[in-house]
Amino acid sequence: MFEPRDPLFAGRVRESFGRQSAMTTIGARLVTVEPGLVAIELPFRADLCQQHGFLHGGIATSIVDTACGFAALTLMAAEAAVLTVEFKVNFLAPATGERFLACGRVVRSGRQISVATGEVTAYAAGQEKIVCLMQATMSTI
Amino acid sequence: MFEPRDPLFAGRVRESFGRQSAMTTIGARLVTVEPGLVAIELPFRADLCQQHGFLHGGIATSIVDTACGFAALTLMAAEAAVLTVEFKVNFLAPATGERFLACGRVVRSGRQISVATGEVTAYAAGQEKIVCLMQATMSTI
Amino acid sequence: MFEPRDPLFAGRVRESFGRQSAMTTIGARLVTVEPGLVAIELPFRADLCQQHGFLHGGIATSIVDTACGFAALTLMAAEAAVLTVEFKVNFLAPATGERFLACGRVVRSGRQISVATGEVTAYAAGQEKIVCLMQATMSTI
Amino acid sequence: MFEPRDPLFAGRVRESFGRQSAMTTIGARLVTVEPGLVAIELPFRADLCQQHGFLHGGIATSIVDTACGFAALTLMAAEAAVLTVEFKVNFLAPATGERFLACGRVVRSGRQISVATGEVTAYAAGQEKIVCLMQATMSTI
Repeated sequence: MFEPRDPLFAGRVRESFGRQSAMTTIGARLVTVEPGLVAIELPFRADLCQQHGFLHGGIATSIVDTACGFAALTLMAAEAAVLTVEFKVNFLAPATGERFLACGRVVRSGRQISVATGEVTAYAAGQEKIVCLMQATMSTI
Repeated sequence: MFEPRDPLFAGRVRESFGRQSAMTTIGARLVTVEPGLVAIELPFRADLCQQHGFLHGGIATSIVDTACGFAALTLMAAEAAVLTVEFKVNFLAPATGERFLACGRVVRSGRQISVATGEVTAYAAGQEKIVCLMQATMSTI
Repeated sequence: MFEPRDPLFAGRVRESFGRQSAMTTIGARLVTVEPGLVAIELPFRADLCQQHGFLHGGIATSIVDTACGFAALTLMAAEAAVLTVEFKVNFLAPATGERFLACGRVVRSGRQISVATGEVTAYAAGQEKIVCLMQATMSTI
Repeated sequence: MFEPRDPLFAGRVRESFGRQSAMTTIGARLVTVEPGLVAIELPFRADLCQQHGFLHGGIATSIVDTACGFAALTLMAAEAAVLTVEFKVNFLAPATGERFLACGRVVRSGRQISVATGEVTAYAAGQEKIVCLMQATMSTI
């Protein structure tokens, strides 16, 4: 669907993800890098929760923000960097589960402004549910 | 401006904040709890950054989400709990600084739905700047 | 995918749409009412534009807000009414075209809170493009 | 607080507002144009309502979007135009009243991206209330 401007986009995204110390700290792992689509996995950890023992909404947001930002980056030129302009997140269900998968997809890839949507899915005992939904604006720098 | 339904609101917020393991993990500290207003401080840490060495947007979001949620909780009844329905965050400046202060303020406190606004301010070498701005919807459960 | 609580949901939505005087004023027409999905059509009119002659973003928002709200209403009980808690809209392309179709779809239908996503598609000379994207929260009253 | 790049900003905004046919159609009037701040007034009209007889949320959004966009334009260079990238609106109270005042204020004025916040206040029988709150991103073109 999308044609990457830079054929080496995947390496660029992996290298940039590797420099996101916050992702290392929370234990997130880059699992998919395709043109316009990035997925990040996060195993549940009891030290990343809110007061009811669910994954903290800000942590879920961190992985889906990163997924949306890098999804935008896959379509940018080799010398470009990506910055989050803003995002909006709806929380649909308590973030309980053994692991979480954040997926970000580009909806519009502009020269200056890209728009992406994403979600975090929780997996528990063979079941899955969407826990939050993001609509985000990214800029090329 | 706001009259708390529960005079013991501050203790309830402090106790609930204490159970947010994500706040402990990132090193955040509750600094202000007033009716309709909560502030949370986060010292900079190199292991909470994005690829350019700024505080990760998701981490900044985590503290201002918590500040907005607890600001809503200060005005709820003693037996109530708070859940984030959704939020939107604009990133205004790179999150560089020695420490960050997230402040959440209630704009409307309804029976089911509360609306809060908040921001994260970065402090560096005696200077301050707003790094992000949140508009959030919280629900009473 | 969704099971309506009230089998007469379509009549209820049509009747409620008929009482939205703003929709009549701008010339919008209800074209689809299915469980969890509502579509509204708006022919282009030169008196509904912004300064560059494109359909005003607020008018595009009006039809997709109405589509998302009524999409949520299709799944509510017979005696319920729907209110928009909040929405967020990204504008993807100039709203030029002969006619516009706003489509709203429920993502989560809760007892109190529903979440919907929607978009406005512009049609011109046999071509179509998405002009804006909504993510919205609705409440049951 | 803000220093306009173009001393003739007010005339530019008034001229651009005059070309927004949607504002004329709904009966909105530009009442304030200052550096970084624009206010728009809308008298209540029964033909701009939703199903409960309140001003339609999309119409309230239209005036506060226009106020925020023109607030951003007051700070742009003489040859620039403004486009809404996205906005988010929370609805705080039913939009009932004799007239409505939308006010948009710039929070950050960047070269490419500006951020504004705004609200619509309803006036009825000498009383006022805030009916909705916007946080918006504008771009310079």
